[in-house]
Amino acid sequence: LSPYYLRELYCLATGVYSPLTGFMREGAYRSVVETMRLPDATVWPLPIVLPIQNKVAESLRPGGMAALAGPDGEPVGIIEGLEVYQRDPAWEAEHVFGTQDREHPGVARLLMEPTTLVGGDIRLFSLPPQEFPDISLTPRETRAAIAARGWKTVAAFQTRNPLHRAHEYLLRCALEVTDGLILSPLMGETKVGDIPARVRLATYRALLENYLPQERVMIVAFPANMRYAGPREAIFHALCRKNFGATHFIVGRDHAGVGNFYGPYEAQEMFDRFSPEELGIQALKFQPAFWCTRCGGMATEKTCPHPESERLSLSGTQLRAMLREGKLPPPEVTRPEVAQILIEAVTGDA
Amino acid sequence: LSPYYLRELYCLATGVYSPLTGFMREGAYRSVVETMRLPDATVWPLPIVLPIQNKVAESLRPGGMAALAGPDGEPVGIIEGLEVYQRDPAWEAEHVFGTQDREHPGVARLLMEPTTLVGGDIRLFSLPPQEFPDISLTPRETRAAIAARGWKTVAAFQTRNPLHRAHEYLLRCALEVTDGLILSPLMGETKVGDIPARVRLATYRALLENYLPQERVMIVAFPANMRYAGPREAIFHALCRKNFGATHFIVGRDHAGVGNFYGPYEAQEMFDRFSPEELGIQALKFQPAFWCTRCGGMATEKTCPHPESERLSLSGTQLRAMLREGKLPPPEVTRPEVAQILIEAVTGDA
Repeated sequence: LSPYYLRELYCLATGVYSPLTGFMREGAYRSVVETMRLPDATVWPLPIVLPIQNKVAESLRPGGMAALAGPDGEPVGIIEGLEVYQRDPAWEAEHVFGTQDREHPGVARLLMEPTTLVGGDIRLFSLPPQEFPDISLTPRETRAAIAARGWKTVAAFQTRNPLHRAHEYLLRCALEVTDGLILSPLMGETKVGDIPARVRLATYRALLENYLPQERVMIVAFPANMRYAGPREAIFHALCRKNFGATHFIVGRDHAGVGNFYGPYEAQEMFDRFSPEELGIQALKFQPAFWCTRCGGMATEKTCPHPESERLSLSGTQLRAMLREGKLPPPEVTRPEVAQILIEAVTGDA
Repeated sequence: LSPYYLRELYCLATGVYSPLTGFMREGAYRSVVETMRLPDATVWPLPIVLPIQNKVAESLRPGGMAALAGPDGEPVGIIEGLEVYQRDPAWEAEHVFGTQDREHPGVARLLMEPTTLVGGDIRLFSLPPQEFPDISLTPRETRAAIAARGWKTVAAFQTRNPLHRAHEYLLRCALEVTDGLILSPLMGETKVGDIPARVRLATYRALLENYLPQERVMIVAFPANMRYAGPREAIFHALCRKNFGATHFIVGRDHAGVGNFYGPYEAQEMFDRFSPEELGIQALKFQPAFWCTRCGGMATEKTCPHPESERLSLSGTQLRAMLREGKLPPPEVTRPEVAQILIEAVTGDA
């Protein structure tokens, strides 16, 4: 298994992907791709599958068992009740990603992979060590921590970027209407040019230590892989966070999107197709936030009636240019404690 | 009927008090006072009763019908299926208000009233004119306006005071997680020394016109009387707002409280006794808000980790003193457009 599939295995073994107990067999795969539901009608929007080389498939006995090994060849667990079947990449891409365009990174990965899949229940010998053990709580450990804090309602926020005031505003709004907050960053593989996970974690810690009550916020790494499947992945992210004990999930603009493949609010609208009871978690939908000089505070278009000219905002390009030059952006855009860490990272001072 | 009971009648006739169809008969009265539920188990926390003089009671035939007249003696409607019974003021006060102390204005009113009650279904000949017709939508009219705007989730905020930045912050937080907002001020009788309804309405309009998107907010007067029954009245206020089409109800510190009769979060905790399904409306619970200079924005103790010394806030007494002197408070405390109206009102410039 590559690091990508070791992460999938970790998610299956720790219950991040509950109710799944292994890589999908054909019935589940077809049902999920076509209907966003498991054969028993439980909502599940993405296929969780294990592609294998044909020569490996030939050695497998249907209904049998096999060892799972990491990139170093060491066995890490087993897969049993085996079923070998073929995926239909074009059909799957069209349903899951809404496109067959190879420019889409999720489609590109899918089309590169073998079309032979193996399904079966998995068991791990032991959990592989995680890169950031401090924040790598399992769903069970996270639920226990939530119970220990006495939180009845918990909002989860997913991120793969540093947090600016705009993100912080969403966190604050969510926390005002819930008991606690889980900041749930993706710490695994990111795209080339992205800010390294270590630096991002430092910015999260700086923000939380300086601007939010420690006893109301936890950082818990999200161990799953990104698919960039937009609306379907937003549902998937919410269901995984339910497994971590969250009751609310923050969904911003173009959640889990990439390029222009999805409309800005398509992910939010996807939540309307299901009842909150069916999902077991509630979406908190937000528009992009900004500092408005007339409001004298952060706002979104839902809460601010003033023209765009009153908004203090920088484009991503402008912001990155400032940081590269070692300049602090306005505190209404990025907290200085966060900006300082980013400046050190991009100017090589760290 | 006094103006107080004409308001009750209006609320019954327009469905503000739905599912009630009239003043309570003895079974409903006893059940509600003791269990916060109607005899069919529907949640209803406050008795809605009509006290009458004994000599009037003597003229009524059980099961019969009677005319209802306003203070001028003009008949406004009828009450039918009559039942005359006795209230138990001490028992009622203890259950409803949690005290028999005559310093409590709700208890004082209860103990002043006749102990003979008449129950029965009511019908009005026509709805009495309301003092502020622009904002006096019935529940049915409000629900139609909500449907016309396409709002699926609507937060209601009750107030009997001018709105400062602290209140505005709660409105903004609520609006960020819902589609629309109903500002629902009590426009009827208020306590001596309170700001007149006409002035308050002007401040609401100034705030909405200058700081919130018009298409996301409606002002709808709340026609019911205040009881100051704290936790029970908070549930009552929420159920009435459900009848107006709200899906969420903002509950702040000491909602519907008076003096020190209730703990600051007793009203919020009361909502935990019922499921959201049972209530049909969700509480959005907030702590008091303030401007924090370190946060550089509005916050509450749930979202701000900084010491009190960083907070820009004025006591009610300090604020009233500033306004009387014609001084604008800091914009972080009160919007200048709102403060100006209050200054004109208290200095007699209006």
